Amino acid sequence: MRHQITGFSNPTIKRLRSLREKKHRKREGLFLAEGLRILTEALDSGRTPKILVVVEGTELHPLAQKIEQATVAAGGDVIETSEAIIAKLSGKSNPQSIIGIYPDHPVPLDELDRSAANIWLVAQALRDPGNLGTILRTGDAVGAGGLILIDDCVDPYSVEAVRASMGAIFTQTVSQARWPEFLSWLRSGPGELVGTSLNTDKDYQAVRYRAPTFLLIGNEAQGLPEEYEADCDTLVKMPMMGKADSLNAAVAASVMAYEVLNQNRQR
Amino acid sequence: MRHQITGFSNPTIKRLRSLREKKHRKREGLFLAEGLRILTEALDSGRTPKILVVVEGTELHPLAQKIEQATVAAGGDVIETSEAIIAKLSGKSNPQSIIGIYPDHPVPLDELDRSAANIWLVAQALRDPGNLGTILRTGDAVGAGGLILIDDCVDPYSVEAVRASMGAIFTQTVSQARWPEFLSWLRSGPGELVGTSLNTDKDYQAVRYRAPTFLLIGNEAQGLPEEYEADCDTLVKMPMMGKADSLNAAVAASVMAYEVLNQNRQR
Repeated sequence: MRHQITGFSNPTIKRLRSLREKKHRKREGLFLAEGLRILTEALDSGRTPKILVVVEGTELHPLAQKIEQATVAAGGDVIETSEAIIAKLSGKSNPQSIIGIYPDHPVPLDELDRSAANIWLVAQALRDPGNLGTILRTGDAVGAGGLILIDDCVDPYSVEAVRASMGAIFTQTVSQARWPEFLSWLRSGPGELVGTSLNTDKDYQAVRYRAPTFLLIGNEAQGLPEEYEADCDTLVKMPMMGKADSLNAAVAASVMAYEVLNQNRQR
Repeated sequence: MRHQITGFSNPTIKRLRSLREKKHRKREGLFLAEGLRILTEALDSGRTPKILVVVEGTELHPLAQKIEQATVAAGGDVIETSEAIIAKLSGKSNPQSIIGIYPDHPVPLDELDRSAANIWLVAQALRDPGNLGTILRTGDAVGAGGLILIDDCVDPYSVEAVRASMGAIFTQTVSQARWPEFLSWLRSGPGELVGTSLNTDKDYQAVRYRAPTFLLIGNEAQGLPEEYEADCDTLVKMPMMGKADSLNAAVAASVMAYEVLNQNRQR
């Protein structure tokens, strides 16, 4: 059903706005995604919002109409409101005109089907939501099975991560685990754990990766802890021709992921 | 010489703070970089700040002492101030404790030596400072000659771009040009212009790139204008196995750049 809401102090608006904070997302099991492109990606992946927020008094884009129909058909709510309130929800001065509130969907490690994909991305203590979203986006592009978040990573359901994922938050499986738990799950089946590291001379192109390949990316500033590197089957590094000794974390993950994809498609 | 400044309203502090805005950077020809890691990168590249800002009353890290000595030797100023003022300059709540103010150094197109490198990165209408900085960082890593910014790109000297570059703003040459000017310069010498595009079926690994290779990356949302694609020698695309049709701009630039580097090092 469509409701109109016009006041900033409306309890529903306050509640939706609170989803910009992790603790409220966690408590409600909901997150916020914005923009027709990302919401369409969600719909194409069979995901409908529990609440859809659209700008009042304008005719919806045909794609937005489809999303509205699907929302209503699935028993969700549609809220019409002002651009100012949408800007407030979005936190952007120039917001998208459509916002969806979706149930989050972290998948427990032991429900992952590792044989479903040749590549899995694993990130450890990732701090930047843009990097996390970008890694999800690359994961979708290379056909990864999903992203496994180790230790305290930034929230994959933050507005910034969802935005940077460009919809991949809906197409990529996300799982969260501590290292010992991850390692014991990993070793319970097939899979090669590959870490990118400065502590090796092994070129990333000199290795033939075996599927499923788990690509482990460390924290932006610290890289991987030494103990975690010791648990890897292989450590590799990308050639660095300049003065810097490392790449951006999402770039490193992507260059590695494309190498593995390229090897797989040459077989 | 070292000065101590304690007031937020001090004119020098106000002036330095104004460098967070593009128009002031442009007028002064100065920009702001922060953090020991980036300032050390600058020093290693022979660049000293005109003004160095450090936290008062603490002993400097040995690397910071070296930067201070170099600053003074080059006739620069050193300002000691409070953490609160440094936070204000940095715009971060948890700022680095050292900031340098450097002269910017865009290089005119006709002063570039294209034979100095096998890879050049070219970005068109790039909007995100994080992407721009990340592309600079990748440019350093692959030994690119520099980054050529086409049309209205975000300012490479913004605090966010400098931060994301992790010091590559000091090691990579930056040039700015309109498209016709760039194209006529490009065609005045050797060089293959390669665009990444959705409008081609040519796989990026199916092409043998000739040096110097100019890798052209389009705007985050729109990609390259059609006319610009028509001016390219080759259009290529990366395999996209998922639902999305594109990668993050910095990721696309990086995956391409590593492919070109890999081909060059196999020769």
